Order: sequence, then structure tokens, then C-alpha cells
Amino acid sequence: MSKTAGIIVIGNEILSGKTRDENSLYLVRQLRDLGVDVRKISVVPDELNLISIEVREFSNSYDYVFTTGGVGPTHDDLTMEGIAGAFGHGIRRHPDLESTLRQYYQPDAIEANLRMADIPEGARLVGGKGMWFPVIAVENVYIFPGVPEILQRKFERIKEMFREAPFHLKEVFLRADEGQIAGILHRVLAAFPDLMLGSYPYFDNPVYSIKLTLESKDTAYLERAHALLLEELTRIQLNPVKV
Amino acid sequence: MSKTAGIIVIGNEILSGKTRDENSLYLVRQLRDLGVDVRKISVVPDELNLISIEVREFSNSYDYVFTTGGVGPTHDDLTMEGIAGAFGHGIRRHPDLESTLRQYYQPDAIEANLRMADIPEGARLVGGKGMWFPVIAVENVYIFPGVPEILQRKFERIKEMFREAPFHLKEVFLRADEGQIAGILHRVLAAFPDLMLGSYPYFDNPVYSIKLTLESKDTAYLERAHALLLEELTRIQLNPVKV
Repeated sequence: MSKTAGIIVIGNEILSGKTRDENSLYLVRQLRDLGVDVRKISVVPDELNLISIEVREFSNSYDYVFTTGGVGPTHDDLTMEGIAGAFGHGIRRHPDLESTLRQYYQPDAIEANLRMADIPEGARLVGGKGMWFPVIAVENVYIFPGVPEILQRKFERIKEMFREAPFHLKEVFLRADEGQIAGILHRVLAAFPDLMLGSYPYFDNPVYSIKLTLESKDTAYLERAHALLLEELTRIQLNPVKV
Repeated sequence: MSKTAGIIVIGNEILSGKTRDENSLYLVRQLRDLGVDVRKISVVPDELNLISIEVREFSNSYDYVFTTGGVGPTHDDLTMEGIAGAFGHGIRRHPDLESTLRQYYQPDAIEANLRMADIPEGARLVGGKGMWFPVIAVENVYIFPGVPEILQRKFERIKEMFREAPFHLKEVFLRADEGQIAGILHRVLAAFPDLMLGSYPYFDNPVYSIKLTLESKDTAYLERAHALLLEELTRIQLNPVKV
């Protein structure tokens, strides 16, 4: 079984369409490459109680949880309190983070600047060596900022800790109607129940109208499922197209 | 109070990073323009039980629910059964949809093609007049396909039924650090608790480093909140920049 993950995107700016969420796409692609199975993405508003509920549920449901957004110094930055609340913890000012912030803002560090050192009790600093500001984690929840460039830089630094066996993928492209092949897909899945099999229609591609994706962490299993699919397609004289 | 909405994106292809979700961004922008407050977006896999749980929870929580994806004829198209299950309904073949499909595929309509006429009991066909294939709705849940062009065409046809009083927006751009203005934002919100106030840092913009967004459906309230914000900013000699 793969490790599972959930992603929680925190921010009114996404729900009101002001900002496009780039972070969940980045994270799902990275996690897929690492062999981790992302099971859910949620986008929730900047509201303390809603953040806590979502984090608690995700933390119970998945091996890893990644949050993005809501970690700055202003009124709408509620992620730290929300995550602390999810675990029944309080917030405390972390001395290492405080001294990092004081060095950065000196001599005019004000209380609001130092607020970014206020993190949930029991939080860990991950990947701290050589990082200006480490990733903060509580239990299985990894906390990232909403600014894509910073999120990506931080994720790059710690991602190897999540790596496991990779997913293997085969794609088959067809010029056909999905209805024509629905029965075949059912039979392939009956024979290979652990296969991850997707069927996606395309209405504007001149070369193909269906993309099938076959995935497994077991290459031999994937090869056998792929062979059965091709055999079944050949039987109804439907040959894959090259793309 | 605004009407609220939730969006459920259904599809393994999004969670595995194979496909970028374009639909939730389109829908949040459209709904915002219509004056509807989107409260949550979820992306869930093609699994019957998970779809049912999410739809039931969203249907209870928001005025409107929009689903995208999972409505084709293949094994991974489970949205109709999932939504039926959410309401304890069965699936039945709708005669009008069946005859539309038979006309389209004739003379070789096969069972798998007709499966797209199988919809939850008690479902309504919305915006049917002049639409080749209407939007299917169950209770407060509106069901859309995953293909963006088709989703958009369908949404355009029915969107006026969701329109209500618009949100009004004012933006203020500053060259400052968020910590500097956190106290001011707190005071503005204390005076105008119904204001929707967002503060967003920018690290790579040459002109400004913070965008503030002020929103309300009440223009007079918005004007007064905006005036107070500018007054408070002037007091610390921080003038908005023109963009």
C-alpha cells in the first residue's frame, strides 16, 4: 500500500477567484513522482474553526497532510492557531524562530513581525539546517506558506523524506467513443482489480479521442494488465494510435 | 446574507496530477460575479462512497453544490450513483435523455452509450430548452461534466438562476511589510466586522509588496471602511501606491 496524503489550501482569495491556486497542482505532481497517493484536496476559508475541523479530519485519514497559506502576520493568517486547535494544543513563541526574525527585522522588529514565530505547541522544525526559515510540522501535518515560490523552495528541501516506491504508468490512445470500450475496461479491471485505470475523453484532439491511463507500483502486474487490454482492443479491431 | 456554494471536483486525474483542474477556478470566478459566496472546494477520487459522503455534507452545508467530472459511460464515471447514494435514491433511465442519446448514436446505440441517461431518481433537468443535453440537478446539487468547454457552455446557459446582489471590491496597494499594518487591519475590522478584508504579500512586484482587498455587498459600508483604512494608513505616513 502506498502512503496517502491530503492537501488543505487555506485562503479566501482562492474561494473568491482572486488568486489561482498553483500550489495544489505543484504538490500533487511532486507527491505522485515521490510515489505518494494524494487522496483529497480541500480549499477552505480563513476561518479558525473550519481550518481546525479540516486538519483534524485529514490528519486522521491520511499519512501526510500538507497545508498551504495563512501563515503571515495579519488578521487573516489563522493557519497556526487552526492547526493547534485541531490537536487541542496552544500556541507558543518558538525561541529559534524568534531570534531568526529579530535578526532579519532588527533593529525595528515589532510584535506583529514576531508573530510568525508563534507556532503550535509540540511542533517540530523540519529541514532546519541551512534553511532560513524551516518547515513547521505538527504530528503528520506539514505547514507551507501560500506564496508558490517559497512553498516550492521549502518543499524541495524536505521532499526526499516522503519518497517511496514509484508509480508506473502506461498510456493508450484511441480514436473511439468511450461507450465502445466500457465493457473492455470492466473486464480488464475484473482481471486486475488493483490496477489504477482511467479513461478520459477528448473532444478537440485531431489524433485521438480517448486517453487510457494504466498505473500500478508493480511493473509485472501493469505489463500483464496492459497486454490484456491490447488483446481485448484488438478483438474489436480497435488499434491504439501513436501520439 | 449571500447565498453560499460548494464545489466538488471528482476525478483521480486531478489528484494524481495528470490533469490540471480548470473547472473550480472558472466556477469560483463565475459565482463570485453572480454574488454567490463559495465556501469550500473539494477534490475527491472516483470512489462511490467518498462521492456520496462529500455530496451529502456539501448539500447540507451550502445553498448550492456544483459537481464536475465523472459523468461519462466508463467504470470510473461514478458521479450519478454517488449523488443518488448521497440522498438515498436509486438510479433510473430518464426517457427524454435516452431518446436524445438514441438519436445521436443511431443506429448503433449500445447499452454503454445509453448509460448517460441513467440519473438519480428525483433528478430535474435544468435549462433544457434548446440545450442538447440539459444540466441534471438533484435537490440543491448541479451536476457538470469534467470537460471544461462543455461545463462552461452548460453553466453559461443556467447561470442567471443563481444571480443575486453583487460583491463590491476595493483594492489598496502598499509598499510595506505586512507586520507594519497588522494592527491597522485589526482596528478596521473591529470597526467594520462584516467587511471582507484580505491582505496578500507580493515578493517579486517592483511597485507594491502588499495588496489589500476590501469587499462588501453594501457599498456605503465599504466606502466607510475604506475611508477609515486610508485615514489609519496616512497616520503612519504610509500612502497607497497607484498601480
